[in-house]
Amino acid sequence: MLAMVEPAMTELYLDDFAAEQVYQLGEYTFSKDEILRFANDFDPQPFHIDEAAAAQSNYGGLIASGWHTGSVFMRLLVDGLLHKCAGMGSPGVDEMRWLAPVRPGDTLSARLEVDEVRPSKSKNDRGFVITRGVMTNQDGAEVFSLKAPFMLRRRDAH
Amino acid sequence: MLAMVEPAMTELYLDDFAAEQVYQLGEYTFSKDEILRFANDFDPQPFHIDEAAAAQSNYGGLIASGWHTGSVFMRLLVDGLLHKCAGMGSPGVDEMRWLAPVRPGDTLSARLEVDEVRPSKSKNDRGFVITRGVMTNQDGAEVFSLKAPFMLRRRDAH
Repeated sequence: MLAMVEPAMTELYLDDFAAEQVYQLGEYTFSKDEILRFANDFDPQPFHIDEAAAAQSNYGGLIASGWHTGSVFMRLLVDGLLHKCAGMGSPGVDEMRWLAPVRPGDTLSARLEVDEVRPSKSKNDRGFVITRGVMTNQDGAEVFSLKAPFMLRRRDAH
Repeated sequence: MLAMVEPAMTELYLDDFAAEQVYQLGEYTFSKDEILRFANDFDPQPFHIDEAAAAQSNYGGLIASGWHTGSVFMRLLVDGLLHKCAGMGSPGVDEMRWLAPVRPGDTLSARLEVDEVRPSKSKNDRGFVITRGVMTNQDGAEVFSLKAPFMLRRRDAH
């Protein structure tokens, strides 16, 4: 199991990232069941868990929790890019925007844009990739954006 | 079911919030099973899903996904405050910080501080409560912070 520490598939280090790169991360379709399950666990507001109440709300129908949308973006990021990176986690999110409702049956496509690569000032084995994530729906509308740093190991520290 | 549109328990409107209020939101204990389940669904990085790999990582053991931590904060916010508010959703998050690892067995206590109350300029039936959320662990260490606006209906629009 120790082989998992540095996955054999690690291909990308801090050194491999550069401003203006764009990574396509794949897509995900939100089912009503998954929207209801996530919201019942983590965000049980009426417009996320109750179809009748949601229909009467200003959203006009059931919508996914923004935390569900963000978590799905994270899954697409891991599957589409991070799984092959020497990732070391993240200190947080600089900005997250829920730009339009995500409804049952919507298919979101995710991409990650690199804004900046910033080597750590205190630890020379790592640094941050400053990114902007975006998800668009099947109609091409941007429904989600995220600005976040991710910590990666440098290749020569490997 | 239409009674759900404006829950009978709605007690708090935009008018009831003011800067410097602090709401205690309760606490939540993270189990290893829940950490693994969330991470397998949404954030399958080695230090979130693989105990052996996590032990060898810079975190020294399994830690919860930051998206799990954020989602648990949201649940505590709904249960502890939002369920009795005339809530209309949120445009997003202005900042989220994962300040220290959350590990299996950790119990986090959440609170919400009101920074500002800002009536909508375009729609006079609503406005935003600008908040700062914080979670501390059983040792009193701040492990999570969030800056976010929440949209609420005004009482006189009811």
